[in-house]
Amino acid sequence: MKDFEYIALRLKNNTLFVLDQRRLPQKEVWIKVHNPDEMGECILKLCVRGAPLIAIAGICSLALFANSGVDKSTLKEAAEKLKATRPTAINLKKAVDYVMAGDPNPNEITQRTEELIKKEIKMCEDIAHLGTDLIKEEEFLITYCNTGSLATPGIGTAFGVIRKAHQEGKNINVYVMETRPLLQGARLTTWELKKENIPYTLICDNMVASLMSSGKIHKVLVGADRIAINGDVANKIGTYGLAIQAHYHNVPFYVVAPQSTVDFSCEKGANIPIEQRPISEIEGLSFKKERWAPENNQSFNPAFDITPVSLITGFILNTGVYTRKEIQSGTLKYLY
Amino acid sequence: MKDFEYIALRLKNNTLFVLDQRRLPQKEVWIKVHNPDEMGECILKLCVRGAPLIAIAGICSLALFANSGVDKSTLKEAAEKLKATRPTAINLKKAVDYVMAGDPNPNEITQRTEELIKKEIKMCEDIAHLGTDLIKEEEFLITYCNTGSLATPGIGTAFGVIRKAHQEGKNINVYVMETRPLLQGARLTTWELKKENIPYTLICDNMVASLMSSGKIHKVLVGADRIAINGDVANKIGTYGLAIQAHYHNVPFYVVAPQSTVDFSCEKGANIPIEQRPISEIEGLSFKKERWAPENNQSFNPAFDITPVSLITGFILNTGVYTRKEIQSGTLKYLY
Repeated sequence: MKDFEYIALRLKNNTLFVLDQRRLPQKEVWIKVHNPDEMGECILKLCVRGAPLIAIAGICSLALFANSGVDKSTLKEAAEKLKATRPTAINLKKAVDYVMAGDPNPNEITQRTEELIKKEIKMCEDIAHLGTDLIKEEEFLITYCNTGSLATPGIGTAFGVIRKAHQEGKNINVYVMETRPLLQGARLTTWELKKENIPYTLICDNMVASLMSSGKIHKVLVGADRIAINGDVANKIGTYGLAIQAHYHNVPFYVVAPQSTVDFSCEKGANIPIEQRPISEIEGLSFKKERWAPENNQSFNPAFDITPVSLITGFILNTGVYTRKEIQSGTLKYLY
Repeated sequence: MKDFEYIALRLKNNTLFVLDQRRLPQKEVWIKVHNPDEMGECILKLCVRGAPLIAIAGICSLALFANSGVDKSTLKEAAEKLKATRPTAINLKKAVDYVMAGDPNPNEITQRTEELIKKEIKMCEDIAHLGTDLIKEEEFLITYCNTGSLATPGIGTAFGVIRKAHQEGKNINVYVMETRPLLQGARLTTWELKKENIPYTLICDNMVASLMSSGKIHKVLVGADRIAINGDVANKIGTYGLAIQAHYHNVPFYVVAPQSTVDFSCEKGANIPIEQRPISEIEGLSFKKERWAPENNQSFNPAFDITPVSLITGFILNTGVYTRKEIQSGTLKYLY
């Protein structure tokens, strides 16, 4: 494979490195990943995260593994194991199925992997290009979790739109929700916004209604981990509550995602499996070994929730911007 | 003053001690408080917290100060300074004004203070007695922040109702919202629930919509820091968003509070000042010196929000349980 260098994923002389996102923003530590098993660990532990990025990271590790001379059954087993690491986001499963379809040789796997990376980067560009037209001068936007260059190999999805609007000089301001329990907003989105000199304000997840009631917020932009054909969206836990609060305040709520996030075999949100994560994430700051809950605590830690299409104002996809009505009338079925 | 020993406030030989709630649940550390100035510091830093409890702690420190032989102008100055420590909750201001009214002598201040403590404890009992009738067998309840013996000198407000329902053998289950930024739910409410052996599950604030959509939640019970005459409620930041999400899912939402929380001179929620707290609370876990946001971050940290009466199903007060309609028709004006 050809060397590449993205913000959170690098390939150098056929060795793959991921930026350990658990350590950001305080430290930039790169982890050398030797095989799909190790990549699975990195994905599970959220060293690498973001639905589009874990797909790309996963197939890169598979392509290198295929080229290392392993036999086909070992490769297939590794592919299946990778797909099972995180059940909610569809991108990884789709990408692995694509590169592994029809008994390909290592060269074909590499070609397909490089093709998907290119496509993913291009989709981010297209999304940003389409999405920025919706953003007006001086707007205050809310974004959730992280949907930037730490979540994709490109400029990001919801974050890509924000980045583009800023580059066009629209004087936007961003409110970043911290996104408990793993604080992807407070740690990662802030880190990316600072790099781009985009004005932002960090808030806790529970402050959003208060902000909206003050009339300060013009739009909410979020990413997606899986979009069902009826327009229901699985995304980071808290997205659904955010959508309800936006709806109550008549603040437009947009889902921003590439084609790779649409699950054409999934009829509705209720069919999407919700990953349950370790409760230590809730009971403190697990990746900093900080605990604040009492010992022997009972907790519940669903990593995602489902936002029904009825709460979504519009979808900014790489093929176009669609209203809720268009999506509800079945647009996604005929998109690609 | 006579010695007393409440869960979070103690008087022994005319010396006042507060339980440092910043250290809970890991450590139970008591702080000796020598005068109203030091009590103001404890209130500001949230060693002692909860609208009813800071009122009692504040006037206890004033009563002891009065009895220490200070002159009247020094005492008055201390009283005014205390009132200004936290602007949103009304209880402290009301309590200080009550004990200081009409140029009282030290003995009168002590008597009034002891009377208010008794009254506050009794109001908690009355609230629990009235509120438990609303709770059915096997219900799943959501509560927010901390409204128990760490927030009052008695058994608590919303927590008191939960405690009573549990004592009556109703087999209730409680979902505790962690309550960012200071985690009063994750640290304090869990600590109290464990002490009482009440089954509970800790969740992040952004998980509540997902839980409600599963149909698992029967009621939400929250406290209050100030209730305006029209029924609008100031409470811990996040209460308003919680109310919106309960409303969307048709989950009954109750505000539980004693008379001392009603501000008879406040017409509506919009008139209640919202305390802004240090942004270090948002950018990490300030009381554990843990930081996760980038350096030179911009943040916004309102400590409270206003829930409009339109989102509140009912009010559980010490004088009775009132529907939204009753409160909207002006009941609070004629209550006391």
